[in-house]
Amino acid sequence: MLLLILDLCGVSVFAISGGLVAVRRQLDIVGVLVLATVTGLGGGWLRDVLIGVTPPAALEDWRYLVAAIGGGLVTFWFHPALGRIERVVNVFDAFGLGLFCVAGALKAAEHGLDPLPAAILGMVTGIGGGVIRDVLAGRVPVIFTLGELYAIPAVAGSAVAATGFELGLEPATVALPAAALTAGWRLLAIRRGWTAPVPRS
Amino acid sequence: MLLLILDLCGVSVFAISGGLVAVRRQLDIVGVLVLATVTGLGGGWLRDVLIGVTPPAALEDWRYLVAAIGGGLVTFWFHPALGRIERVVNVFDAFGLGLFCVAGALKAAEHGLDPLPAAILGMVTGIGGGVIRDVLAGRVPVIFTLGELYAIPAVAGSAVAATGFELGLEPATVALPAAALTAGWRLLAIRRGWTAPVPRS
Amino acid sequence: MLLLILDLCGVSVFAISGGLVAVRRQLDIVGVLVLATVTGLGGGWLRDVLIGVTPPAALEDWRYLVAAIGGGLVTFWFHPALGRIERVVNVFDAFGLGLFCVAGALKAAEHGLDPLPAAILGMVTGIGGGVIRDVLAGRVPVIFTLGELYAIPAVAGSAVAATGFELGLEPATVALPAAALTAGWRLLAIRRGWTAPVPRS
Repeated sequence: MLLLILDLCGVSVFAISGGLVAVRRQLDIVGVLVLATVTGLGGGWLRDVLIGVTPPAALEDWRYLVAAIGGGLVTFWFHPALGRIERVVNVFDAFGLGLFCVAGALKAAEHGLDPLPAAILGMVTGIGGGVIRDVLAGRVPVIFTLGELYAIPAVAGSAVAATGFELGLEPATVALPAAALTAGWRLLAIRRGWTAPVPRS
Repeated sequence: MLLLILDLCGVSVFAISGGLVAVRRQLDIVGVLVLATVTGLGGGWLRDVLIGVTPPAALEDWRYLVAAIGGGLVTFWFHPALGRIERVVNVFDAFGLGLFCVAGALKAAEHGLDPLPAAILGMVTGIGGGVIRDVLAGRVPVIFTLGELYAIPAVAGSAVAATGFELGLEPATVALPAAALTAGWRLLAIRRGWTAPVPRS
Repeated sequence: MLLLILDLCGVSVFAISGGLVAVRRQLDIVGVLVLATVTGLGGGWLRDVLIGVTPPAALEDWRYLVAAIGGGLVTFWFHPALGRIERVVNVFDAFGLGLFCVAGALKAAEHGLDPLPAAILGMVTGIGGGVIRDVLAGRVPVIFTLGELYAIPAVAGSAVAATGFELGLEPATVALPAAALTAGWRLLAIRRGWTAPVPRS
């Protein structure tokens, strides 16, 4: 139950980030709601389609849809206020990232995938929605371009979760430290301005 | 049989709209045929992959492929004439939209999805092909940007169809009014210049 | 065993082409590795998701992931050298294209698809990774725009393989000539500067 509430909060925060991108690109209400929904749920849909769990849980379950679409509607109406507290949104986003990556990696591992593919699918769960958001908004995904540390903390927590599962640890035992690794590293990166390496030119 | 013919006509009209985008973007024949095919069939493929009906019917059945590729070839050769009658193409496109949305929502409902996800998948069936077309053509999907009323009539008809199914009505009974709602609203929107709301700035 | 090694080489070459696009677009290491991976493996993932073989073999099997990510890391570190030998990369890419198309078409045919859809899925296997790469890099897929002959040789070899399978020929018998058709035509097109037809304007 607690996990469901956390998950729905994560979906809403991701959806708000998607809606804000749409508002800034001057899209209409359809754009805001579609970008909010795919940002909130798209990563999980990608993972579920790739592991063959269809229809995806977050498409069948109306609560997930309402959390995502609700995040979009809130953004449509209250975007000036949300834009002003974007740093707060980014903090919650970091927690959502940790939650999604670990839940995604564990779900993939439970479906029989080895640690390396499970870790990749955990990362896909965490970053996939934002990548689809950026493609639909007509820009190169920001996690590829700005050097911001986002995907690397995501894959780190996913890898810890997938490895813990492989070693036979209880999912509940491994989930918290793995999610904390992702969220903590991401928060430190925001605070300290850490960036990902770029190719030498 | 009538339904199949209507469906194939809808695919061809969508394919022509995809081909015209490709021609205007000065793509080569590969671009024209690929954009025509994904515009005509991509929405149904997305829906089928999400509900786990694989391979999608419109990929297995050669008649759908021929309708889509044929629409692309016709556009490649006769695009000046087709471009001149684009308003006629848009009228047929509205009927295709109604048909696709309702058929998509009913198919999702028949596979056990609740009304909300079924309505969303109906909309995905109707608009998904055009969204993929625009992403591949390097532009933000027009249904997000121009404020044109396209997705809202699509989701309205899908919701009527999904709700009717949930209430136990015969699919044949609910399909016609639901498709008429989508197509009629869309045609009125074209005629009257109705637009979707945009976020206040 | 030989087939596996050839397949992994093809994945690595495709991954290098994806990594080079990322480097030229000044993406960071995340962009380089993601583009390398989707270019190397994305076509096969698309095919497997569409025919319902999930999780895709090239996601479950760590050797494919290592070949793709390894190609990306090599590009990240040694891109100046790789950029200088890009014509050599293009030659290997033509062989990879032939291999992927034929393997993809035969896999689709073995899963019961008719020759036309199987040929299309063979082409998707060969060109899908590059199309995803270009969309993620923010450009219209080059195979649609430059008039370069890439997709047409791809679909030709795929069609030969799918037709041969339909006629009951041994996969091993049909694979080599079909792959040679794709690779040879592609190499001749590079050498002679052949291009695909464009719509008259």
